[in-house]
Amino acid sequence: MKPIFNRIVVLGVGLIGGSFGMAAKRNGIANEIVGIGRNSSKLNRAKELSAVDYWYTDIDEGLSDADLVYLATPVGNIIDFLETHSTLVKPGCIITDAGSTKEVICKTAKEHIPHNVYFIGGHPMAGSELSGVDAAAPNLFDNATYILTPDSGSNTEALMKMREMVNSIGANIIELDPAVHDIYVSVISHLPHVIAAALMQMAEEFSEENPQIYDLVSGSFRDMTRVAGSSPEVWRDICITNADNIAKASLVFKKHLDKGIEYIADCKSVMFEEWFSDSKSLKDKNIKKR
Amino acid sequence: MKPIFNRIVVLGVGLIGGSFGMAAKRNGIANEIVGIGRNSSKLNRAKELSAVDYWYTDIDEGLSDADLVYLATPVGNIIDFLETHSTLVKPGCIITDAGSTKEVICKTAKEHIPHNVYFIGGHPMAGSELSGVDAAAPNLFDNATYILTPDSGSNTEALMKMREMVNSIGANIIELDPAVHDIYVSVISHLPHVIAAALMQMAEEFSEENPQIYDLVSGSFRDMTRVAGSSPEVWRDICITNADNIAKASLVFKKHLDKGIEYIADCKSVMFEEWFSDSKSLKDKNIKKR
Repeated sequence: MKPIFNRIVVLGVGLIGGSFGMAAKRNGIANEIVGIGRNSSKLNRAKELSAVDYWYTDIDEGLSDADLVYLATPVGNIIDFLETHSTLVKPGCIITDAGSTKEVICKTAKEHIPHNVYFIGGHPMAGSELSGVDAAAPNLFDNATYILTPDSGSNTEALMKMREMVNSIGANIIELDPAVHDIYVSVISHLPHVIAAALMQMAEEFSEENPQIYDLVSGSFRDMTRVAGSSPEVWRDICITNADNIAKASLVFKKHLDKGIEYIADCKSVMFEEWFSDSKSLKDKNIKKR
Repeated sequence: MKPIFNRIVVLGVGLIGGSFGMAAKRNGIANEIVGIGRNSSKLNRAKELSAVDYWYTDIDEGLSDADLVYLATPVGNIIDFLETHSTLVKPGCIITDAGSTKEVICKTAKEHIPHNVYFIGGHPMAGSELSGVDAAAPNLFDNATYILTPDSGSNTEALMKMREMVNSIGANIIELDPAVHDIYVSVISHLPHVIAAALMQMAEEFSEENPQIYDLVSGSFRDMTRVAGSSPEVWRDICITNADNIAKASLVFKKHLDKGIEYIADCKSVMFEEWFSDSKSLKDKNIKKR
């Protein structure tokens, strides 16, 4: 297969950026993968792990001759890049990102990217609570959902290349409007992360009087708090740039939680069983197993 | 090893009862395992899978000559058994249970069990969202926490045998007061199950206007709703017999959730990052990996 790009430049060679570099190399998507970051020992490690061929800490130098710029930093840094560095790439370059919110990013790109540089927003629904290139893997995107958020103004050729690239790393494309994307992920990802953190805070409050409580943790609590181990820096930016949607989702969630608790507290045994049974049917029908 | 019991009788040969039968057989804890249930095809399946040696649908017949009665039915049926059948076992018999709440069960046992029959409450912190003997496995209890709730009135010899039995199936014993147990599990198991169900109800409400929402589900939502697939009948009884504690835990949980959401909604970026970071530290420190 002919490479889709000559040079891919990845900004932020952590879990997602590193996995993307590995997947791009494995699938022959580019002739060379260049990493840009702030920490030379992390970048060296990325090279050791074959996530990048070369690396730079100087962003201007690293961007030189990029055909695809892949922004895999926290959302705040993606926005900074679009505002201050997107004019430095060569004409015809495609810029994409892996940020977990899309509306603010796509709006920023529209305002700041030159007309002869093409932006297509992206969001790979992969990753885990781990971070850093040591957690990266070339198969991270295999069968994952990969959202693209083009709009009517997107360059057709750039969009075609992006689709080809995402298919090549084994992911399944869903194309969405950025604002719709942000509603969806507030519900099925962002609020759940905040809930996981709140579960830990609750357990800690109880543990002050009941120090053995953590000894009783089993599968349910472990699974439901797994993502509380995610990067606070990454999740700060995600939550702040999707604040309204997360707050709305929280109200809907609490309404349903209150209903379940009301049935329990009022000993409405039959109504609770029906409610839980309905939830189970929704889960069994709609949530595919891994 | 000499068997601890001649005959163990398991009431309710599903995930927990079936796994207990398998583990008891694997570890030579009894000379024979007898199953009691209502559904002969399920009991036949339990025999096929070597979870029991014989089975009865007639409870009086099945209880005959039992040295240990292991109650692995939903909590409501455990309570019914203690009220109406515990007088039918032979003197010296030990009765235990695998119910997820302990205060109501232990109180019922105290009130109804004859003085020459010995009750020790139990709660194996194992299991999953699956149910039925087909999901059972002899290693379900390996390294699991297994709570026993003896009190000052418990028969010493019966308690020693129970400890030996739990150790023999590979689990780790924690002994707790029944009321303290119920507080602990309301926080780290029961409320999380209600939250998982509420997450499904929330997603469904959003999916009415956004039908693609379930296509975006990835690891966080999948893990956090896994236990919404649990048996509604089992969880009805658990929640109703631990109502006050679950309602209290819910208030504490919502207080912490509201704090996280407030930081997000007010764009308090630094405070949210600190809050999430604190939650991450609690998780990394206190929640052991599998």
